Amino acid sequence: MEYNFSDRVKDLGGNAIREIFKLLADPSVISFAGGFPTKTTLPTQLIATTTSELMSSSEAENILQYGSTEGYTPLRLTAIDYVRRYGINDINIDNTLIISGGQQGIDLTFKTFVNKGDVVLVEDPTYLAVLHILKTYEATAIGVDSGNDGLDLADLESKMIMHKPKVLYVVPTFSNPTGRTYSIAKRKAIYELAVKYNVIILEDDPYSELRFSGERVPSIKSFDKTGNVIYITSFSKTLAPGLRTGIAIGDPEVIRKMTIGKQATDVHTSSLSQAIINNFLSKSLMDARVSELIPLYLEKKNAMMSAIEKYMPKEFTYTNPDGGLFIFGEFDESLGINTMKLFPEVAAHKVAYVSGHSFFASEDKFNTLRLNYSNASLDQIDSGMKKLGDFFKKIIANK
Amino acid sequence: MEYNFSDRVKDLGGNAIREIFKLLADPSVISFAGGFPTKTTLPTQLIATTTSELMSSSEAENILQYGSTEGYTPLRLTAIDYVRRYGINDINIDNTLIISGGQQGIDLTFKTFVNKGDVVLVEDPTYLAVLHILKTYEATAIGVDSGNDGLDLADLESKMIMHKPKVLYVVPTFSNPTGRTYSIAKRKAIYELAVKYNVIILEDDPYSELRFSGERVPSIKSFDKTGNVIYITSFSKTLAPGLRTGIAIGDPEVIRKMTIGKQATDVHTSSLSQAIINNFLSKSLMDARVSELIPLYLEKKNAMMSAIEKYMPKEFTYTNPDGGLFIFGEFDESLGINTMKLFPEVAAHKVAYVSGHSFFASEDKFNTLRLNYSNASLDQIDSGMKKLGDFFKKIIANK
Repeated sequence: MEYNFSDRVKDLGGNAIREIFKLLADPSVISFAGGFPTKTTLPTQLIATTTSELMSSSEAENILQYGSTEGYTPLRLTAIDYVRRYGINDINIDNTLIISGGQQGIDLTFKTFVNKGDVVLVEDPTYLAVLHILKTYEATAIGVDSGNDGLDLADLESKMIMHKPKVLYVVPTFSNPTGRTYSIAKRKAIYELAVKYNVIILEDDPYSELRFSGERVPSIKSFDKTGNVIYITSFSKTLAPGLRTGIAIGDPEVIRKMTIGKQATDVHTSSLSQAIINNFLSKSLMDARVSELIPLYLEKKNAMMSAIEKYMPKEFTYTNPDGGLFIFGEFDESLGINTMKLFPEVAAHKVAYVSGHSFFASEDKFNTLRLNYSNASLDQIDSGMKKLGDFFKKIIANK
Repeated sequence: MEYNFSDRVKDLGGNAIREIFKLLADPSVISFAGGFPTKTTLPTQLIATTTSELMSSSEAENILQYGSTEGYTPLRLTAIDYVRRYGINDINIDNTLIISGGQQGIDLTFKTFVNKGDVVLVEDPTYLAVLHILKTYEATAIGVDSGNDGLDLADLESKMIMHKPKVLYVVPTFSNPTGRTYSIAKRKAIYELAVKYNVIILEDDPYSELRFSGERVPSIKSFDKTGNVIYITSFSKTLAPGLRTGIAIGDPEVIRKMTIGKQATDVHTSSLSQAIINNFLSKSLMDARVSELIPLYLEKKNAMMSAIEKYMPKEFTYTNPDGGLFIFGEFDESLGINTMKLFPEVAAHKVAYVSGHSFFASEDKFNTLRLNYSNASLDQIDSGMKKLGDFFKKIIANK
């Protein structure tokens, strides 16, 4: 039959990164493209022993039975304690919702607040899946300028006035794609503006455990006295993305509506995943886990910083993150380098990045690219960056 | 702050059944309300040993890493073979999508086809979550009359002509809530009408493995030569609902759009759940599993049929399913019994059903109720039905 797809999907392709993944099925390709945790760190034995323990416990049948949409009660209770590490206090179980990965928290927030045609503000550049999700709501994403310290407050305020956005989406700690972190002062100022203009802040915080330098910064949610902020975190970067489990924290009235939205999609998150994570958090294993991950990620990040320095052309400038998974770089605009157009040629050399334009809402900056350092080995980081450096030096020489 | 919720959720409460679950937290209540598998059948040891096996295999890290939105490749391949048992042949991997439970398959179908204001036809009565999901798309559900053999074809055709629906939703085998099964002739006729009027059929098939009498009937999808049918099944009723995993089968063009919709919500289904189910299906364990479940469910169903016969007033008529989880009953309309209004009084007697009006799209039939026999023990079925029978006999005597 001739399909008559809904308006929300009829012109929609897959998001750029998920599509690149398919090209990367070739194992000989060195990928700096994804945002995958380092494969060798994935806790296979922990998952096996935890599952055995859970399936021998008195909770076993509850874990395999239907659960409540809000989440597995023991995990919701554990979450109240867990988010104290992000400065979030004075909440109770009604402030918590267990989600099927951080991405579902984003989707449910928009489902709860965004009508067709509404505006959502995002940092420019931002997590590209957010731009994709907003298309499924037929909403408009508008980019806010940003610098080393996060959003430009003047631009943010003027866009709040001009566009009356429903939601502001931010990744204030080790942002995807830039790796940058907002200062405390910037966080407070953003919160104040959201209150002033009646905007929901969606604070996405998947990376903050992966800090290898600098001091921890409290979440924007930690300043929230008015219920403007929805905070989401996940266990994809710290434990295992395959479990698809995260936590959303918000005002009970908001959590209630998000729960109704979730009920209409997956009923609840896999209870086995939820119980595994609850077991892990209840035993206070996060700090030990993170202290294993950090030296490894730092070593990889340092390897990539050195390799960029060593191999990339001098016209390439780049961020220097204190944590997370990404470095964002750009070529001097005057060179006219287009990382999207060049991608197929680069990929033919068996190395991959994500073209940076995909992360921008308001302008396509084709001279940018995102590099991930958690997926490749140290050797691959060196040899892959050499390939990239040689490639771009040649392009520049031929200009 | 004063929240400005989206139009799709602002007037939306939770669905009736999920709300009843909360009332049923009291373990002394005998519940005929849910659609839960029998708790003691949940395969706790199987899940433990399978997880250990998977986490010691060469696939372990792939299972914990990010996966593709379409699903875990080994499960997608296994699914091709698995759905042959429903008469679905001649498909390949591009016809398959792994979903986070059957409910997500419903949600993604509507996301893919339904705009605000569009009409979806459903059997009257139908699975009530579908009515809830349609509200999140601001779509209109219109009920089609049905009898012992399923949809009334004349009513279906006239409503296809009148309302130009995008989708027809059906549970043709052991329907929720009636337990009824459509004949082969009826299935073919429904398919022909869908082709004639360019309507997508969403065939939801969670129950067909739980057959205790009569012959298996091929799925509507098995007759599909035109790509009109999306077929979904899940492992919630056969293995464990807590794993939240199902399979959708459709035309590759449709599956592609559903995948894009899924990408924007949970990225992919828990890979651990997917791998557990793949392990189970690859070892061809389904038949053995089902042959353990069926005698138990049949015994419970027979116990409930006897108890209805024994205790309920003669003005109560009810279905006699060949499988599945539900019996649907109604009181003679002349009695003016309203099962919704009476529910709090009934619940005070520590017994629960779901008022049948929740399952109707086009008319609220308050004289009906749905009874589930899989959750309660044989003793509870007898004593709970006695309480219900005594209650309703008294109501009738006092009329």
